[in-house]
Amino acid sequence: MISKNQLKTLRALGQKKQRKALGLFLVQGEKNVLELVGSNLNTKQIFATSEFLSEHKDLLNGFDCIDASLDELTKASTLKSNNAAIAIVETPNMDVPTAKGTMIALDGVSDPGNLGTIIRVADWYGIKHIIASTDCADPYNPKTISATMGSFARVSVSLVDLPSYLEASNLPVYGAFLEGDSVHQTTFKPEGILLMGSESHGVREAASCYVTDKVTIPSFGGAESLNVAMATGIILDNMKRQHTN
Amino acid sequence: MISKNQLKTLRALGQKKQRKALGLFLVQGEKNVLELVGSNLNTKQIFATSEFLSEHKDLLNGFDCIDASLDELTKASTLKSNNAAIAIVETPNMDVPTAKGTMIALDGVSDPGNLGTIIRVADWYGIKHIIASTDCADPYNPKTISATMGSFARVSVSLVDLPSYLEASNLPVYGAFLEGDSVHQTTFKPEGILLMGSESHGVREAASCYVTDKVTIPSFGGAESLNVAMATGIILDNMKRQHTN
Repeated sequence: MISKNQLKTLRALGQKKQRKALGLFLVQGEKNVLELVGSNLNTKQIFATSEFLSEHKDLLNGFDCIDASLDELTKASTLKSNNAAIAIVETPNMDVPTAKGTMIALDGVSDPGNLGTIIRVADWYGIKHIIASTDCADPYNPKTISATMGSFARVSVSLVDLPSYLEASNLPVYGAFLEGDSVHQTTFKPEGILLMGSESHGVREAASCYVTDKVTIPSFGGAESLNVAMATGIILDNMKRQHTN
Repeated sequence: MISKNQLKTLRALGQKKQRKALGLFLVQGEKNVLELVGSNLNTKQIFATSEFLSEHKDLLNGFDCIDASLDELTKASTLKSNNAAIAIVETPNMDVPTAKGTMIALDGVSDPGNLGTIIRVADWYGIKHIIASTDCADPYNPKTISATMGSFARVSVSLVDLPSYLEASNLPVYGAFLEGDSVHQTTFKPEGILLMGSESHGVREAASCYVTDKVTIPSFGGAESLNVAMATGIILDNMKRQHTN
């Protein structure tokens, strides 16, 4: 059963301010919680249905697990469905990673669902680090975590002063611009930063001045733009294709 | 002002059953309504703020426009935001297209947001027709239309008996399977059908037996799968790259 105090904490963690004050965040959904328990993150508590707890008994050994009904869990959750398991997790203390290998940099990508989808596709292509401007979506927003489908445990997101980070890096910066060169014809270096802007504002001036190569996805139809997560995935596929075959 | 009867119709069109009975659907949001008025679709009425109506006066000439407050529009809308304009549109009578050129076939893709994102990326790559199994999301669901970002006006979606359609087509069928050959190494023919399954069930047996080539997106990290819309976009990019350079 979820106590009144526990319910209060779970609800509070739906808010960014409370997540920051408590140094905690929520991981919701079966797939995400299973990825969590296999990761290095510090899990404080897991609330789950008795079915989930008994099915994954061995994996959950040593964790502080609280048995709750699906009804209780749905009331505590910030999501409408997929609430058989909810975990409270410590926000990790991470150093900002050195610019190395293939990285993604995000400028003003404020939708948590898009950020989560970008984390998932980054993980697919083996990218370990995402650098994001401080006005990007919160990587610990429950909607972000859900959209990652477990990849939150393998990809770090650091909110930084993006222009300073790009200035200090010695890597080529591939910026996505509608007027860039086709990614089908671009020769990507083995290491580099893929810089994506928001759908409404693109890459802003303060960051765009560090772009070494402007790239675009060639269009053959009428759509004016692609969703930023979709565009990130398509460009990553082109970058990886050149260095793995 | 939106009358009680008009409000009733707008609200009814949030439901699939009512859309079917009335032969009408909703187009919501400024960008989508502007794409609509430039298309061949038959628009019955446009409800919009006076700002929207005066800003686009020339484009809207000849349309039945009703001035409404943003408050009224938000109450009538199925969406939480982006409600400056809402249109009621006649569902077009479409013939199922002949299998020709590059097409997309969807097997059990039931999320309307995913379907809308697939329509948008199809439009980007110049695909005109999508064939979908009858248990796919409704192409006229307001969430589908919103996610297309205007591309609903340029891409047709036909719900059909998918296995029969594939059986009758003379095109190669490229099916997305985790165990397929890498799309980086696949030689795509200039015409063909890209067949995508749902994230949970993949391409089902009844359709998979018509697949001529199993393809996959090579993975370099820990993510187990990609979102179906993302995967569609990445494979389309690989198909188009070979036939346009």
